[in-house]
Amino acid sequence: MPITANDPSRKSWLDIATDSDFPIQNIPFGVFLTKENIVTVGTRIGDFAIDLGALQQLNYFEGIDLTDDVFMQDTLNDFISDGKKTWRLVRNRIADIFDETNPILRDNKKHRDVVIFRMKDIEMQLPVFIGDYTDFYSSKEHATNVGKMFRDPENALLPNWLHIPVGYHGRSSTIVPSGIPVHRPMGQTLPNGETQPVFGASKLVDFELETAFITTDANIMGENIPVNEAEEYIFGMVLLNDWSARDIQKWEYVPLGPFLAKNFASSISPWIVTMDALEPFRTASPKQEPAPFPYLQQEGDHAFDINLEVGITPEKGEETIVCQSNLKYLYWTMSQQLAHHTINGCRINSGDMMGSGTISGPTEDSFGSMLELTWGGKNPIQMKDGSERKFINDGDTVTMRGFCKNDAVRIGFGEVSSKLLPPIPTK
Amino acid sequence: MPITANDPSRKSWLDIATDSDFPIQNIPFGVFLTKENIVTVGTRIGDFAIDLGALQQLNYFEGIDLTDDVFMQDTLNDFISDGKKTWRLVRNRIADIFDETNPILRDNKKHRDVVIFRMKDIEMQLPVFIGDYTDFYSSKEHATNVGKMFRDPENALLPNWLHIPVGYHGRSSTIVPSGIPVHRPMGQTLPNGETQPVFGASKLVDFELETAFITTDANIMGENIPVNEAEEYIFGMVLLNDWSARDIQKWEYVPLGPFLAKNFASSISPWIVTMDALEPFRTASPKQEPAPFPYLQQEGDHAFDINLEVGITPEKGEETIVCQSNLKYLYWTMSQQLAHHTINGCRINSGDMMGSGTISGPTEDSFGSMLELTWGGKNPIQMKDGSERKFINDGDTVTMRGFCKNDAVRIGFGEVSSKLLPPIPTK
Repeated sequence: MPITANDPSRKSWLDIATDSDFPIQNIPFGVFLTKENIVTVGTRIGDFAIDLGALQQLNYFEGIDLTDDVFMQDTLNDFISDGKKTWRLVRNRIADIFDETNPILRDNKKHRDVVIFRMKDIEMQLPVFIGDYTDFYSSKEHATNVGKMFRDPENALLPNWLHIPVGYHGRSSTIVPSGIPVHRPMGQTLPNGETQPVFGASKLVDFELETAFITTDANIMGENIPVNEAEEYIFGMVLLNDWSARDIQKWEYVPLGPFLAKNFASSISPWIVTMDALEPFRTASPKQEPAPFPYLQQEGDHAFDINLEVGITPEKGEETIVCQSNLKYLYWTMSQQLAHHTINGCRINSGDMMGSGTISGPTEDSFGSMLELTWGGKNPIQMKDGSERKFINDGDTVTMRGFCKNDAVRIGFGEVSSKLLPPIPTK
Repeated sequence: MPITANDPSRKSWLDIATDSDFPIQNIPFGVFLTKENIVTVGTRIGDFAIDLGALQQLNYFEGIDLTDDVFMQDTLNDFISDGKKTWRLVRNRIADIFDETNPILRDNKKHRDVVIFRMKDIEMQLPVFIGDYTDFYSSKEHATNVGKMFRDPENALLPNWLHIPVGYHGRSSTIVPSGIPVHRPMGQTLPNGETQPVFGASKLVDFELETAFITTDANIMGENIPVNEAEEYIFGMVLLNDWSARDIQKWEYVPLGPFLAKNFASSISPWIVTMDALEPFRTASPKQEPAPFPYLQQEGDHAFDINLEVGITPEKGEETIVCQSNLKYLYWTMSQQLAHHTINGCRINSGDMMGSGTISGPTEDSFGSMLELTWGGKNPIQMKDGSERKFINDGDTVTMRGFCKNDAVRIGFGEVSSKLLPPIPTK
């Protein structure tokens, strides 16, 4: 089935800024709350949010096999369970409905009034119920930087890293959408040179620049997903700020991995950009040497050219861009991550989220965390307001943005932006 | 509110074997499927399963503030969200309904016919939807044994272990109830003495003897749960076999912890035994030296005296008991685990599950995994059928049982029993 929604020559009858992340070629999916307290599944075109539940009730999806209430829900999980064929039919239909040559909705004010909202009038929600959250560690540059700082500079990459898309389980209950503030965590840390830990607020709160993908139901327990089928089970992607407390992490992480250093909050952008929308931005991933095991070998291009940036905005201050990276630098692709995750028979459900791991590029200004950008605090970042940052201060807002661009079209994610607040006093 | 359901002198008009794990003083909660394909929340008395949805429809819970469909569901999550006061009211009421002196249900055959099932006629389901699964590592004996084998025998315990109830996130999607078979996982391993990994079926599949507790909604993101309030948020406990592939684990676990070595399956017993039912078996936990940080310090007894055992039954063979342990050996208590888990503001939801970690006792026959019992395969276990076991063979059924007992009453968990099958061929 052709992805007609991607036609770069298509224009909408809605007014869309030329540099918008959300042209009619994007058509992401999300969940929003209206001023009337109605929650619905929606899409976004330009600065308009579209109520897909209302569109369906008005019969605009006639001929597509959908359950009556698939969009009148507070999560996308049921729609995601419908599978890739349905996602594509719906996305193509939405493009048709808003195509400048299609008068049906365009010329029906009554319908437009119940379907179309201004973004400033709605509130974005978490788009999916996330059953399980896995975070990978797939940037060679990031793993090398961390290995140099925390372990052995001469043997920065651990022996398994080039064979395994290393990953671990995260916490679903503290994944929040853009805009929700995050509290600095309390915890145990071991001060440098000391032998006894201390208790207090983390002093080294950091962001991690990541993307994440959302899966559909893919297998039963015991079955694997072949690497060459894996993309069929990926619905789309979001930006992910995997907040991290470096001092808590350093003390707690042996031998079972990061725990409280990570699970106080993970923030995501609210619109899931579909893999169909990202299709024009497919690109080659870095050469893998040594060759991975056959279950991880794939033909063709499976990386995506997504520009990423991180800005820090001090309280009442101006934003400083601190990092510019790109998803294409990742050593392991999303399909390799999913194939590896299931090679032992692990079950994947609709709405599961898998993070890329921190996306660091080859240059010092492309590192995806303050830990790497300031090299453990040794080289503070100069902010536009004259202050310095080694890590994130209370009151700082961390904003991540991502977009793809070619000569014909720009497809973006919008942003994930969240403010760091002081800890809530311990009870 | 007194826990009248615990009255040890109470007898039921139902016929209960004297050594049953489920006397009228237990009253656990679970979810079962009838032959008519109806799923309901239930309890168990002796070898009878009781349909709580039917009991509620027949008005037996009159006067208790419950939503109409709280038991006519396929999970206990909503009931658990109702909180400890409601759990206790319902459990006390069930004890009254089945008390030998109460004729109301006893003498109403029509009601009995729709409320009471024989265990052999129903199928137990997963009792809760588990949003997040955390596994701790709270047995000092287990952590010491593993440290001796895998790291440094002279410094077996890592420096953080006596300060932190070390834990990590597990996978919710592969938690299954007793009776569901488990497939041996495929994966990467590094053979002893080699520098290059190989791909194939795990050769070292192991059980881990654990218990787990199920929480109710406890906090908002950013807030902690004080250690002295933590037990208010624990609904009850199950037995947990945290299946592990030791060879996959050894190769993959640095630096982010176990992943595919654990997430192929975790099996639990289907009846959640309430903390109220376990109250008579409260006991002291091991002395903690050094004293933990104040947020982990608690007065009184917070361990529970629960006898545990593991048996292995070869295909068509006789069971050999390979381990006898007790939950009371755990260094860190459940309330300390929950207080630690939330000290950074991590949100806890209804139905979250937290595993104890492998429960190893002080003696060699009380170690909670084959890894420890056979000391890494060096000392195979002699089975009753004459065979030997270093780890678990295909066709073996691993059964864990747990019960508490004093002069007056026995409160048990039943069992978690699951068969290990060969891998499903890789696609």
